[in-house]
Amino acid sequence: MKPLILITNDDGYAARGLKVLTEVAREFGDVVVMAPEQNASAKGLSLTTKVPVRVREVQQEKGLHVYACDGTPVDCLKLAYEHFCPRRPNLVLSGINHGSNSSINVLYSGTMGAVIEATVLGVNAIGFSLLNHSLEADFEPSRPIVRHIVGHVLKHGLPADVALNVNIPRLTADEIKGIRLCHQASGKWLDSFEKRVDPIGRPYWWLTGKFVCNEPPDTSDEWALMHGYVSVVPIHTDYTHYPAIGELKNMEL
Amino acid sequence: MKPLILITNDDGYAARGLKVLTEVAREFGDVVVMAPEQNASAKGLSLTTKVPVRVREVQQEKGLHVYACDGTPVDCLKLAYEHFCPRRPNLVLSGINHGSNSSINVLYSGTMGAVIEATVLGVNAIGFSLLNHSLEADFEPSRPIVRHIVGHVLKHGLPADVALNVNIPRLTADEIKGIRLCHQASGKWLDSFEKRVDPIGRPYWWLTGKFVCNEPPDTSDEWALMHGYVSVVPIHTDYTHYPAIGELKNMEL
Repeated sequence: MKPLILITNDDGYAARGLKVLTEVAREFGDVVVMAPEQNASAKGLSLTTKVPVRVREVQQEKGLHVYACDGTPVDCLKLAYEHFCPRRPNLVLSGINHGSNSSINVLYSGTMGAVIEATVLGVNAIGFSLLNHSLEADFEPSRPIVRHIVGHVLKHGLPADVALNVNIPRLTADEIKGIRLCHQASGKWLDSFEKRVDPIGRPYWWLTGKFVCNEPPDTSDEWALMHGYVSVVPIHTDYTHYPAIGELKNMEL
Repeated sequence: MKPLILITNDDGYAARGLKVLTEVAREFGDVVVMAPEQNASAKGLSLTTKVPVRVREVQQEKGLHVYACDGTPVDCLKLAYEHFCPRRPNLVLSGINHGSNSSINVLYSGTMGAVIEATVLGVNAIGFSLLNHSLEADFEPSRPIVRHIVGHVLKHGLPADVALNVNIPRLTADEIKGIRLCHQASGKWLDSFEKRVDPIGRPYWWLTGKFVCNEPPDTSDEWALMHGYVSVVPIHTDYTHYPAIGELKNMEL
């Protein structure tokens, strides 16, 4: 039986990055897509709890079924996994995100939230992001990268409980130097809220921000991307800092 | 100068757990609270991007300033840290959450999302959760636990880039056996969406779920909680699975 690949994203079901990812995935197997009705960027692993979610069938043809859902990316992933996949998926893909999810951005990303959820559920998962926020971003140089990594993971699998965070630099196919396994760069967003005043004089605050990267040593994803490489960061869902367990023993009662 | 403690949560500014946490924090220093206007559970590290957020002053007295914000817990944390703290906070606290954030729940929790964001910003941070979802939960047995851990962290600090996820069992003060440093238990939520039909016959899906824990070995937070201990899991914000970098080298191009 062909592999079944479940796909989502956070830019919404109509995003061009999702379409490219779907096209490449179909080279490998049957595909189910469930993606948000609208852009759901920066939703992290947010879940919809107070209200129900709805699902709408968008497209159905041989080997492809596309749904839109008004929940978050993690809602999409969980719901599709449990109720809209004809069999257990062999692989979850998320993206291709319009914009970077390198470094600390993995924490906030809805695209990567769905990848993390898939990992919790025990399914191999890969998130793809292109360093170009534009709706008209050129995803053509991304195709062979996605093809290589998806093919590799379908063939060789991934270590247990490990998913991949793949970021692709905004370069032509010729300019991309290769693919590098990396660790997540340390960084943070500062100056994150801008104060404004509404037409009747009341203050409001709008998210903005300036990304500050504290590295790069030459093994981080930021370094790889700045030097023309595709970065692949293996991530996991155990947030425990194991050395600190011992260091903090004197806190016990 | 007294320590400044910044507090948030995901149950909302009016939650009783937040009030108890604020009272204990005031024993140690000046306190700024910025918490969501409404319940914002399961928001993870979600950020508000499409619309602005508003802030409302709720209470001001000597050594205490309380604000409500209509953003997510991470919005609250970032905005308060940058614009509503009179000086850099020495410590961030989040909670006391009404309900567990042990095991994999740390991934979805808004309470813990704010703790993770504080860690990104380089501030020592602790999230507290009580294993009781009720609005009328009894937080009295939590007070000495919170007091001990806050006092310890203010005195001794935390390892760099490490925060604490503290969960308190639903027991009386006498029944609580002690405090244990733990790792995050492996687990997952299954059967997560229930299908229903609305009054005009259209289907909808509502989040529910059954928690399945794959452990416990005797060092996990689930084990500690089940055996009457407060669990303290040191967490960090680097999701990299370092051993996998080497294992996946053959994926490079």
